Amino acid sequence: MVNKRKIILDCDPGIDDAVALCVAAAHPEAFELLAISTVGGNQTIEKVTENALRLSAFYGLSVPVIKGAAGPLMREPHTASDVHGKNGIGNVELPPSPVKAVEENAVVYLKNVIDRLEDGEKVTLVPIGPLTNIALLLKVFPEVKEKIEEIVLMGGSLYGGNVTASAEFNIYEDPEAAAIVFDSGLPIVMCGLTATGKCGLDGETVPKLRNGKGKVAAAVGDMIQFYLDGPAYRGKPMASIHDASTFMYLLYPDIYKSEKMIVKVDCSEGFNRGMTVCDMRKEKYREEPSVTVLTDADGALFGQYLVESIHKLDRMLQDKS
Amino acid sequence: MVNKRKIILDCDPGIDDAVALCVAAAHPEAFELLAISTVGGNQTIEKVTENALRLSAFYGLSVPVIKGAAGPLMREPHTASDVHGKNGIGNVELPPSPVKAVEENAVVYLKNVIDRLEDGEKVTLVPIGPLTNIALLLKVFPEVKEKIEEIVLMGGSLYGGNVTASAEFNIYEDPEAAAIVFDSGLPIVMCGLTATGKCGLDGETVPKLRNGKGKVAAAVGDMIQFYLDGPAYRGKPMASIHDASTFMYLLYPDIYKSEKMIVKVDCSEGFNRGMTVCDMRKEKYREEPSVTVLTDADGALFGQYLVESIHKLDRMLQDKS
Amino acid sequence: MVNKRKIILDCDPGIDDAVALCVAAAHPEAFELLAISTVGGNQTIEKVTENALRLSAFYGLSVPVIKGAAGPLMREPHTASDVHGKNGIGNVELPPSPVKAVEENAVVYLKNVIDRLEDGEKVTLVPIGPLTNIALLLKVFPEVKEKIEEIVLMGGSLYGGNVTASAEFNIYEDPEAAAIVFDSGLPIVMCGLTATGKCGLDGETVPKLRNGKGKVAAAVGDMIQFYLDGPAYRGKPMASIHDASTFMYLLYPDIYKSEKMIVKVDCSEGFNRGMTVCDMRKEKYREEPSVTVLTDADGALFGQYLVESIHKLDRMLQDKS
Amino acid sequence: MVNKRKIILDCDPGIDDAVALCVAAAHPEAFELLAISTVGGNQTIEKVTENALRLSAFYGLSVPVIKGAAGPLMREPHTASDVHGKNGIGNVELPPSPVKAVEENAVVYLKNVIDRLEDGEKVTLVPIGPLTNIALLLKVFPEVKEKIEEIVLMGGSLYGGNVTASAEFNIYEDPEAAAIVFDSGLPIVMCGLTATGKCGLDGETVPKLRNGKGKVAAAVGDMIQFYLDGPAYRGKPMASIHDASTFMYLLYPDIYKSEKMIVKVDCSEGFNRGMTVCDMRKEKYREEPSVTVLTDADGALFGQYLVESIHKLDRMLQDKS
Repeated sequence: MVNKRKIILDCDPGIDDAVALCVAAAHPEAFELLAISTVGGNQTIEKVTENALRLSAFYGLSVPVIKGAAGPLMREPHTASDVHGKNGIGNVELPPSPVKAVEENAVVYLKNVIDRLEDGEKVTLVPIGPLTNIALLLKVFPEVKEKIEEIVLMGGSLYGGNVTASAEFNIYEDPEAAAIVFDSGLPIVMCGLTATGKCGLDGETVPKLRNGKGKVAAAVGDMIQFYLDGPAYRGKPMASIHDASTFMYLLYPDIYKSEKMIVKVDCSEGFNRGMTVCDMRKEKYREEPSVTVLTDADGALFGQYLVESIHKLDRMLQDKS
Repeated sequence: MVNKRKIILDCDPGIDDAVALCVAAAHPEAFELLAISTVGGNQTIEKVTENALRLSAFYGLSVPVIKGAAGPLMREPHTASDVHGKNGIGNVELPPSPVKAVEENAVVYLKNVIDRLEDGEKVTLVPIGPLTNIALLLKVFPEVKEKIEEIVLMGGSLYGGNVTASAEFNIYEDPEAAAIVFDSGLPIVMCGLTATGKCGLDGETVPKLRNGKGKVAAAVGDMIQFYLDGPAYRGKPMASIHDASTFMYLLYPDIYKSEKMIVKVDCSEGFNRGMTVCDMRKEKYREEPSVTVLTDADGALFGQYLVESIHKLDRMLQDKS
Repeated sequence: MVNKRKIILDCDPGIDDAVALCVAAAHPEAFELLAISTVGGNQTIEKVTENALRLSAFYGLSVPVIKGAAGPLMREPHTASDVHGKNGIGNVELPPSPVKAVEENAVVYLKNVIDRLEDGEKVTLVPIGPLTNIALLLKVFPEVKEKIEEIVLMGGSLYGGNVTASAEFNIYEDPEAAAIVFDSGLPIVMCGLTATGKCGLDGETVPKLRNGKGKVAAAVGDMIQFYLDGPAYRGKPMASIHDASTFMYLLYPDIYKSEKMIVKVDCSEGFNRGMTVCDMRKEKYREEPSVTVLTDADGALFGQYLVESIHKLDRMLQDKS
Repeated sequence: MVNKRKIILDCDPGIDDAVALCVAAAHPEAFELLAISTVGGNQTIEKVTENALRLSAFYGLSVPVIKGAAGPLMREPHTASDVHGKNGIGNVELPPSPVKAVEENAVVYLKNVIDRLEDGEKVTLVPIGPLTNIALLLKVFPEVKEKIEEIVLMGGSLYGGNVTASAEFNIYEDPEAAAIVFDSGLPIVMCGLTATGKCGLDGETVPKLRNGKGKVAAAVGDMIQFYLDGPAYRGKPMASIHDASTFMYLLYPDIYKSEKMIVKVDCSEGFNRGMTVCDMRKEKYREEPSVTVLTDADGALFGQYLVESIHKLDRMLQDKS
């Protein structure tokens, strides 16, 4: 178990974002969520912001949600609605949130959240969508770097992509933003496909969740079932829940293997655009690498801990009510 | 003569920036300067900010100066100190400014300046350095677009570059920022090398300025003499004063020929990185072009008007004192 | 008038190729055609080879025609059948040729043609299609370079393209081949769009050709009328006859202005792919440029000389029969 | 054991090329070497051709050696003399060959070798250097494709490079040639770093070879010792002998794991230039993949078989004499 961390979550829910937030919500002893910012990605900025609001309320969280960038720095936004459904969270209907998104500029708001940290305190950024907001934050307010403990992000891959042969969706969607973040010199934990792809829930576990008692288990189960039935995982035994590996890594680092590496982002126009190039030639390093790349994962352990977290949150919510 | 315009000048003085500001200062009947933001380019952000402060005071201006981005979005900054001198303005020593730079974030400050415009008012952005600040402004606060009349920038070229065979310095220094600005859909006047290269002062006119009566003429003359003696113009009859064409175009559009074109910025890694690609195939346009490209200029007329502007500012300053 | 040159013509007829060959045929006092090789481009390799055979016979030439590369080095071939018609020469029907194409490999055949030159003799290559054959010749048999006087090619542009904003068709179709040729160090005359675009025949001259007496004038007139009626020149006063500028330059260099320049070919994946980058910054050259770039042309003079050449060939053919 | 194959070896010896040729020579029951062509790579074309001649004689082979391309299609050649020594084979001195290289053009010669195959016969190409010769062969004489059984090449990688973070030397040295070969549609076995890196000899085995009885064992041992002492393998327990995996795969496929994949070569100017992009997303394939990618190898088995092959060749040579 890690020390309690102050967290800014930047997300585009998104089914796996929804599960990631569930993990965060289930572990208030480990995570203090300072803010949730949203970014266009899995769905439009309007839908993911609405989802962030509803999920927060549903999970019993009381965290400011703030709408960020609608699209990437350089190109038109795409969405992944085939994978995440029309509403972005597997068409699961959650109750409307009693609160609205903060009516401020996301980049300025995040800056102010960081400014309010006390002396010696630092924040951990957990971006699980395209890195647009984070890149803008770092470029407009470079002084925040001193207050950032670490960036634990879902994106990229040690090798092999999903959107293209070599690129993962979050990085591909905004490679220039990703390059700004990876070149920032900040300590980064890259939870990429090579590890996160092994971490999910299988077709036996998901029905148990859906038919169990808790409302969180039911909703999360329904969402993951949408994955299992959809184009990305149809016919596969398991649906990966990529984004959840960020918080799972912080809670249970033993699930993962990792190595410190130099990582660059391909921003060319060629067919490797959006690839995270992990330099495995450590004997050639002339600089200390700043990126911890998750290189492997124990999927069974992930599944076990994830189910526990889901049930833990259900118990917490029942205790409260 | 144009209507009086509200202006935000974004600059990296820079000798030709210094002359551009002189032109702006000489025409208060045409320009109301709301703010001067700086950007790393011709020299370091510290030096160009100091220069902006000193030049403003020297020209009798009372405009807030604010320090912007030290370097481009994606790479390390370069400077052009061989062309502009160690201090950035041809090693001409100006008196220290009585005021300091505004201690705020430049992007947020510019946003607030624009917010303070009254209903129906708009601002003209005049960026004459790398487009980093403007790109960040447009990405973090896209709502400002509605208040921007036009962007009259020095950068790029109809064809042919100076830093490379195809790229001009300001665009080459931050192509991604330039692409963000050119792709913004805002009306842009591109004062590029093809026209601005013909606009300058020659080796006969400059000594007359230096030996004349006014302090502005003397200082501007000294700076341009530094150009004439330096690596960029040595042996040439004339030194181009690229940045000044922005305000000169607004004052005396008849100096220039122009065409509306579709313009894209090459952000590839190849040797056309930073090129402004002006599509001359108008019969193929399917969208209304948003960029007015200066395609030619009457250099003699420019020179005449520029000398007049310099003397006008000297007279204004003498009248004041 | 130039000395008589030994010529290898590499072409993809193509209407303007047909006119270029007409010019060559009309001036036996200036050109000795050693071989005509074909390359896929304006139309498929089969059609352009058939056209080369028919055109040669029609013009009274007795030159070996040999079928070369069907497509470019790296990608799938495209054609420009909208511009050149279904049969590649404006759907003008020429009589079948009494001879067939040489049944040998084009690259080897060209090598052997060059080998048969006597001591001290050199050949001028005139490529007016994609540069695939020439690039392969130079790479497989680099020793031929010593026997090449000059490469006078139609392709590229000083600035501005036709297929894309910055690329001309012949270069765009095989940029890697073009880069091999331009980087070969051989003396090159680049007849690019900036000059060749001004050289053509107008809507008043063409009907006179078509209604005149000679069969060549009639056929060439019909082909150019196809241009004038087609997508490339519809509504324009004149149809450019790009390829013809190669032989016209050799015959009447006074039509053109030219400058020696360093020229590179953009082979990136970005939107400048296929651009010929002409470095205008001569003060920065550290190597002697090998490319003579046609920078301007006297279109009226071109038209006059072209009409004369067409009539000259008709007279030659009538005298013979 | 496979059927006896007719082989064209294209190489740039090179220490591991020397070992690969040793394996081929040791198995005349499996391989009939039709020709050995050379290509600039590990050392200059002159040195690698001399090495090919000497190695052939030393190994008792009687195969025509022919000098191919000095450098890549598009750029200047590099060598890897730090890894392979001044003479290209670890500075091991072999006796001069009694025969000279064939005085013909390599591309034409290979074409003729293939033409001489009898009906129904096919050839296996084994390129273990940059793919320049093979690409030129396929582009100039595309009809040879019908006579090519398979291309078993050393080059590329499933993931991770050696020259750069993502590119292997042979592909990086001529990416355009590699792209031509990989896009040819021919069946390819890609023996890339991911597998070949595990196949070599260790610091205990090599001295035994050097101190044993056979002259081949001694020479090969000396060469590999040069690897172990050099910059690529210093401090490592084992030296990879990449090129040898081509023939070892043909002899002992059980050493390797492999998968059929779609593979593309990155020819961009960015930092992934020369990368072989292996698409692992098999569920997205719409075409039958033509490349068999070696994905893993049993290094111990490789080492055992390699030592056996070396001793086998020594015995064969002793029996002969």
